Amino acid sequence: MKCPTLVLTVAAVVLVLTGTLGLRAQSGPNDAPRYENGADLVFPADYRTWTFLGAGIGMTYEEEGGAGNGQMFSNVFVNPSSHAHFMETGAWPDGTTFMLEFRQSDSAASINQAGRFQTGLAFLEAEVKDSRFEDGWAFYQFGPGGNLRDVAPRMTGDAVEPCIKCHTEHTAVERTFVQFYPTLLEVAREKGTLKPGF
Amino acid sequence: MKCPTLVLTVAAVVLVLTGTLGLRAQSGPNDAPRYENGADLVFPADYRTWTFLGAGIGMTYEEEGGAGNGQMFSNVFVNPSSHAHFMETGAWPDGTTFMLEFRQSDSAASINQAGRFQTGLAFLEAEVKDSRFEDGWAFYQFGPGGNLRDVAPRMTGDAVEPCIKCHTEHTAVERTFVQFYPTLLEVAREKGTLKPGF
Repeated sequence: MKCPTLVLTVAAVVLVLTGTLGLRAQSGPNDAPRYENGADLVFPADYRTWTFLGAGIGMTYEEEGGAGNGQMFSNVFVNPSSHAHFMETGAWPDGTTFMLEFRQSDSAASINQAGRFQTGLAFLEAEVKDSRFEDGWAFYQFGPGGNLRDVAPRMTGDAVEPCIKCHTEHTAVERTFVQFYPTLLEVAREKGTLKPGF
Repeated sequence: MKCPTLVLTVAAVVLVLTGTLGLRAQSGPNDAPRYENGADLVFPADYRTWTFLGAGIGMTYEEEGGAGNGQMFSNVFVNPSSHAHFMETGAWPDGTTFMLEFRQSDSAASINQAGRFQTGLAFLEAEVKDSRFEDGWAFYQFGPGGNLRDVAPRMTGDAVEPCIKCHTEHTAVERTFVQFYPTLLEVAREKGTLKPGF
């Protein structure tokens, strides 16, 4: 009788521990992209707690000629599990999600005399690596701050052509502008994943 | 013979699971400040995966007069558990750690025509809320990029006076410049934790 009781007790402990593990897995980071209709991206509401890669000011898209964006900040965030993967390998796993937010700026407020700091959200965009899609990456616009979409349709056709062209021709690693993310640039250099010319 | 073997096997499984749990606990968020000698701050090497609050460019300390810092970015990160607490309450818990990094900037590279983006780390500072200290907050300098301290001594005396003065007189919430962190500013307004005048 002693042995079966002990086995049962230990088995119960195993179950409890397994349950705890399961709970931890569930409450831990779950930062994979969620889709509707297989391709439309559900807004990742917690993206501001993702890993920050870098900020710029007045960064313009080539085709926009640089007008009107001189005082706008851009912040780039990536989902944490993909960031961890990049730090190990210098490459992006499937499911990698970049969030690019544009923010207005202000100056001459509080102690700040001359510089500029970030204020309201102007526009929010996303880029997702997903091997199911033709080019391997998809692009999304969540729209203007204050009126963000809950679900952004995958950009297609003429609308996405400039995104694909620019992210193909001018990016340092895969379809991403690692040349603007200093902590990643070092890793990509070390891992040998930079494109020629970078 | 059969029972002891089974018990040993199950016990081994328990040990493996416990080990996994321990490993998970260690690799999970543990973002409280670590001190040496009770007050000197151990460098939080993973601060770049903490929550990003905001960036500025050319942000200058009052006493510096704004010279020479016009092209320098500043990024502010806070430990994730304190960020979560702030989002609930509009206030900072004990152990809150701010990391302030200054980064050089560059322009006219790659597709970027006119704007500026962040490059190498120039200097790294920290601010910690800890009720054990006289003012309730401590200030640290980890030094220049490429030569960061493993442990930063708590700033005292004349060296810390300007920090305390400015963080007392010009901050929107407690000793922190929430007026420069747009996502926190909304929360502080809602929770009623902004100082008068903000």
